[in-house]
Amino acid sequence: MLTGMQVAIIGGDLRQIEVIRKLSTLDTSLYLIGFDQLDDGFLGVENKTFETVDTDLLDAVILPVNGVNHNGEADTVFSGHPQVLEEKWLAKTPEHLKIYTGIANKTLKNIAQQSEKSLVELMNRDDLAIYNSIPTAEGAVMLVIQHTNVTIHRSNVLVTGFGRVGQTIARTFANLGAHVSVVAKERELLARIYEMNLTPIPLNSLNDAVSEADVVINTIPAHILTSTVIAKMQNHVLILDIASKPGGTDFNFANKRGIHAILTPGLPGLVAPKTAGIQLAELLSTLLEKQWIDQKGGRH
Amino acid sequence: MLTGMQVAIIGGDLRQIEVIRKLSTLDTSLYLIGFDQLDDGFLGVENKTFETVDTDLLDAVILPVNGVNHNGEADTVFSGHPQVLEEKWLAKTPEHLKIYTGIANKTLKNIAQQSEKSLVELMNRDDLAIYNSIPTAEGAVMLVIQHTNVTIHRSNVLVTGFGRVGQTIARTFANLGAHVSVVAKERELLARIYEMNLTPIPLNSLNDAVSEADVVINTIPAHILTSTVIAKMQNHVLILDIASKPGGTDFNFANKRGIHAILTPGLPGLVAPKTAGIQLAELLSTLLEKQWIDQKGGRH
Amino acid sequence: MLTGMQVAIIGGDLRQIEVIRKLSTLDTSLYLIGFDQLDDGFLGVENKTFETVDTDLLDAVILPVNGVNHNGEADTVFSGHPQVLEEKWLAKTPEHLKIYTGIANKTLKNIAQQSEKSLVELMNRDDLAIYNSIPTAEGAVMLVIQHTNVTIHRSNVLVTGFGRVGQTIARTFANLGAHVSVVAKERELLARIYEMNLTPIPLNSLNDAVSEADVVINTIPAHILTSTVIAKMQNHVLILDIASKPGGTDFNFANKRGIHAILTPGLPGLVAPKTAGIQLAELLSTLLEKQWIDQKGGRH
Amino acid sequence: MLTGMQVAIIGGDLRQIEVIRKLSTLDTSLYLIGFDQLDDGFLGVENKTFETVDTDLLDAVILPVNGVNHNGEADTVFSGHPQVLEEKWLAKTPEHLKIYTGIANKTLKNIAQQSEKSLVELMNRDDLAIYNSIPTAEGAVMLVIQHTNVTIHRSNVLVTGFGRVGQTIARTFANLGAHVSVVAKERELLARIYEMNLTPIPLNSLNDAVSEADVVINTIPAHILTSTVIAKMQNHVLILDIASKPGGTDFNFANKRGIHAILTPGLPGLVAPKTAGIQLAELLSTLLEKQWIDQKGGRH
Ligand SMILES: NC(=O)c1ccc[n+]([C@@H]2O[C@H](COP(=O)([O-])OP(=O)(O)OC[C@H]3O[C@@H](n4cnc5c(N)ncnc54)[C@H](OP(=O)(O)O)[C@@H]3O)[C@@H](O)[C@H]2O)c1
Ligand SMILES: NC(=O)c1ccc[n+]([C@@H]2O[C@H](COP(=O)([O-])OP(=O)(O)OC[C@H]3O[C@@H](n4cnc5c(N)ncnc54)[C@H](OP(=O)(O)O)[C@@H]3O)[C@@H](O)[C@H]2O)c1
Ligand SMILES: NC(=O)c1ccc[n+]([C@@H]2O[C@H](COP(=O)([O-])OP(=O)(O)OC[C@H]3O[C@@H](n4cnc5c(N)ncnc54)[C@H](OP(=O)(O)O)[C@@H]3O)[C@@H](O)[C@H]2O)c1
Ligand SMILES: NC(=O)c1ccc[n+]([C@@H]2O[C@H](COP(=O)([O-])OP(=O)(O)OC[C@H]3O[C@@H](n4cnc5c(N)ncnc54)[C@H](OP(=O)(O)O)[C@@H]3O)[C@@H](O)[C@H]2O)c1
Repeated sequence: MLTGMQVAIIGGDLRQIEVIRKLSTLDTSLYLIGFDQLDDGFLGVENKTFETVDTDLLDAVILPVNGVNHNGEADTVFSGHPQVLEEKWLAKTPEHLKIYTGIANKTLKNIAQQSEKSLVELMNRDDLAIYNSIPTAEGAVMLVIQHTNVTIHRSNVLVTGFGRVGQTIARTFANLGAHVSVVAKERELLARIYEMNLTPIPLNSLNDAVSEADVVINTIPAHILTSTVIAKMQNHVLILDIASKPGGTDFNFANKRGIHAILTPGLPGLVAPKTAGIQLAELLSTLLEKQWIDQKGGRH
Repeated sequence: MLTGMQVAIIGGDLRQIEVIRKLSTLDTSLYLIGFDQLDDGFLGVENKTFETVDTDLLDAVILPVNGVNHNGEADTVFSGHPQVLEEKWLAKTPEHLKIYTGIANKTLKNIAQQSEKSLVELMNRDDLAIYNSIPTAEGAVMLVIQHTNVTIHRSNVLVTGFGRVGQTIARTFANLGAHVSVVAKERELLARIYEMNLTPIPLNSLNDAVSEADVVINTIPAHILTSTVIAKMQNHVLILDIASKPGGTDFNFANKRGIHAILTPGLPGLVAPKTAGIQLAELLSTLLEKQWIDQKGGRH
Repeated sequence: MLTGMQVAIIGGDLRQIEVIRKLSTLDTSLYLIGFDQLDDGFLGVENKTFETVDTDLLDAVILPVNGVNHNGEADTVFSGHPQVLEEKWLAKTPEHLKIYTGIANKTLKNIAQQSEKSLVELMNRDDLAIYNSIPTAEGAVMLVIQHTNVTIHRSNVLVTGFGRVGQTIARTFANLGAHVSVVAKERELLARIYEMNLTPIPLNSLNDAVSEADVVINTIPAHILTSTVIAKMQNHVLILDIASKPGGTDFNFANKRGIHAILTPGLPGLVAPKTAGIQLAELLSTLLEKQWIDQKGGRH
Repeated sequence: MLTGMQVAIIGGDLRQIEVIRKLSTLDTSLYLIGFDQLDDGFLGVENKTFETVDTDLLDAVILPVNGVNHNGEADTVFSGHPQVLEEKWLAKTPEHLKIYTGIANKTLKNIAQQSEKSLVELMNRDDLAIYNSIPTAEGAVMLVIQHTNVTIHRSNVLVTGFGRVGQTIARTFANLGAHVSVVAKERELLARIYEMNLTPIPLNSLNDAVSEADVVINTIPAHILTSTVIAKMQNHVLILDIASKPGGTDFNFANKRGIHAILTPGLPGLVAPKTAGIQLAELLSTLLEKQWIDQKGGRH
């Protein structure tokens, strides 16, 4: 239980509903900032603003999964306008306050550093990234079905990268009957790809492998689908770039060649906000409980 | 090869492009009716109308997958207006002419009978229905991802019916990590469901099973999801009714209860017109070759 | 419940233990013939002989899964000698008595006909045959692992026949990572094989397909793996003939060519007697309940 | 190519045949020690003894997968007696000589150190360990089918450990229709287990989870299946201990309780020596080529 812990939630999308629900059942004192259009009545939850919330007592601040943009604005679907997180507001909160965010850009890291608050990046964690890979893969499936005129079944799908998301995507498309090839660098990843009955492609053979693909799904956050690589692709190929902005694709060149290439950020929040929200809520409640116990000086 | 065979294609959707492509490579003499907006130039293919085509020499007529509506109109996406198939036009064609259609309603059956032409219903064939089940299942996957806020992975999916389409849908959702239950009547189908590691539900237990489902996908062309059954469902359930019109769902009652229920005809043409078209083209060319050989009096 | 019903079980293997256990819990009066070495004490169960059992009161006789041999002998692992089922013994039982057996040869059919008793062949039933296909497939997996020096993973497995057993075997080996091809005659079976992401082989292409196989598993009860076909196989191939005796393989020719070919009857009883016994017991109890209700004149 | 490279292979099992075959095609000069009973004639391969081989020219020594025992003996199935690897023999070989072995015990490490030769432990490599996990998992499947009287399908299988072998075993049994639970410590492994549609069990819940298992497969090389854990198991459970000797099971206690527990070393060599040998040969040839190029001073 988190009885007595004071937490502010600043903006976000549908996923935050599950966070609010979970923290409310744990008896947290919750203050919502940027939720003026939210109707649901949760126990122990109050709508506030940066001005009206009692900064002195706050133990934690929860930002949207995407954190803030370069102006420090936290997006919110529950209000008409974004919420600007300011360093001087944070400065008023207690020293022990922690900031929880999905991902953190430079702006957010600066704000945190200057206000001397510790910042927890949830999406850096392998466990959450793996849970998140499930709705991400389903989002990719949806987009491929929408944007091709053939079935996934028996089509050639090339996945670049075999990390937390790449593994899930590769398996998911194989389970739908696609012929899946996976590009990776390390020998042990290539061995695992082989064991999983997918076709392993060493990174330096990408150029050759790409020419047979009907669909290319990139998960490598680096400039991997260069113009040279795209030049080798079939005309009808669909490129789905899953990697975080700006993706790993030369979109200009793809465009010139008339190849359909889509950058697809935020799939979990798009296709399964409830599932993604529950995953987030589970992890956040575990971390907050740990913080709360530490703060109170050990397990009670 | 179909050299010399004269075939008219009357209307249709993107799937017919693959039929035209295939028959053109087999050297068929093709006359397109209702394709005035089609640009692609295929070898040996001419645009015609009911008036300009030479009826005396026709060997076969190919209708859209959906056949004609109750006014005898064949829909076409390649022209501004539908093409009306008339009995008196058919009467002018040779006795041996065959009419190929996906499905046939009463109107079409009447027209065929009165003009004494034999009518081939392709979707009645088990093989085509099974090939078609693949894009149908992918269409169902796409719709479920779009219309729920949770992942298919670990959700409870109930499939009613375990025929040509039901089997494919059940397997597909299980491969995506759903807990799949399947409703069937026959003991041998229940055994196969068990063997496939799905949960078998005898038809008379439908009422109980339905209460745990997050998604219900109906493939039984009979009034199966009655108000009594729907009354047992969870509020957040999504009903996908795959069965041919009018489906098997009491949509009025679902609507009253605020349950989201969708009738989803024509998924293959929607999500994978090329794959579905190729399947159609393969079968049609096999059947036309058989007709052509028979007509010419045996294999040459 | 089967309270009052009098049933004789004549010989059998470990599977009968599960039948005895199940029928005993249903309160059947059970007489065991040919079980003198069985120790387990089940409630309401008595050891008898053909001579000491009270024939007048018997409602049903249960034979081993394999029925009797051509001498009318029922094998039994629970006694030193087989039990001979005689027509004149059966003649003494009531007219309504039913004989339950797995399979029935000519001898058994004659005995039943002459004593005017109805004979139920359980293995003819699709449901039991499908349940049985599960331990059968696992038996095949075990034998292939034992008798090859390569992994099933990535090896070429050819399955002939896609009936109740063939489907299960094909899926099982594919799930272990084999490249599975399946030979079938009907177009709709070939379509299902394609949908299941296996390689469909029309029966008339068997000769070509066989040359790439590392393992051939036959489920067709006909002379299919002839010397002509075997001549096309690789030297290192393993043939597993699952079809009932005498199988579908020219074992002499295989032997001459030095090709390893095994006839593998009775896999379920061999590898999973408990599972197979439970399946049998489930079905038998359903059928006996139906008989008992009919006999007593309708449901009570 | 390895033209000119001089390699001695000392003992081993059937897997070495594939190593010999591969290195022979690469034109290596091969000396076999302890292969007097091997008949196959490979090109460029000579039978030798420790005495007759020309130590001065050797570039590499290949030991059996199991290395040597505590007496320094390398087992061999191709000779009547083991081959004793002696430090003073090694001392005579060139400084640059490398010793390749599957695993290395203390004895072998000592011998290598004292003779100042570098020692390469192949089974330490993630890639080979993953390739090896495939025949290992098939060996486990074979043993479970042999040693239980139920099917793997629908049985409860608990796998402890989710490393290179554990992952493969867990997936393999799930693909055969078992309900698979996997015990792991790290949160990210538990997330991956969840994503793969298996049941994740945190290590500290092992005690509870074990009570439902029909089969327990241990891959953790630590004393994990203690008497306390075994005490919670069902009577009919089968324990397969895959971990390297002495395994992680209290075999004495299991024995006392009448629980069937098997230590199963060397599965790949047992069930798929050819596949395992090819994997080994692939890796060895890559490593030898690298050594050869380095030795000759860069790529030519
Ligand atoms: N669109 C969405 O909705 C969505 C959802 C989730 C994640 N994502 C994004 O997807 C991307 C992948 O996420 P993840 O969790 O799978 O990350 P990850 O576990 O770190 O995997 C990244 C993979 O890319 C490879 N890689 C990285 N840099 C490389 C380079 N320069 N050259 C070649 N390979 C390289 C890595 O291989 P090595 O290990 O060998 O470096 C690894 O296989 C991230 O950008 C993430 O933000 C997007
Ligand atoms: N939406 C789309 O895009 C799309 C695509 C393809 C097909 N479809 C439609 O989907 C439906 C199913 O097609 P299919 O090819 O799978 O047909 P199918 O092979 O005939 O299967 C129908 C299933 O429904 C069962 N069934 C039929 N009538 C029943 C009744 N009165 N009560 C209980 N069960 C009953 C059948 O069981 P028994 O064998 O025991 O009767 C069988 O399991 C059809 O209406 C078809 O037109 C729609
Ligand atoms: N070894 C064991 O432990 C074990 C266990 C279970 C079963 N079995 C045996 O395995 C065999 C198969 O059993 P099942 O239940 O799968 O039978 P099934 O459902 O009848 O399937 C038999 C298959 O063989 C095909 N077939 C039959 N005769 C053919 C012919 N002359 N030419 C080409 N194809 C032919 C059938 O195709 P069509 O439908 O087109 O005819 C069907 O695909 C039986 O002999 C059975 O006794 C053995
Ligand atoms: N019988 C055979 O034929 C055969 C074949 C291949 C391998 N093996 C043996 O199988 C074993 C596993 O091999 P592997 O390649 O899978 O090794 P691995 O990749 O290192 O995996 C070992 C697993 O055990 C866990 N683990 C290790 N020590 C632990 C401890 N004290 N407490 C809890 N968990 C612990 C590891 O978790 P952490 O990462 O969290 O430590 C990891 O999940 C080895 O002993 C290997 O020699 C046997």
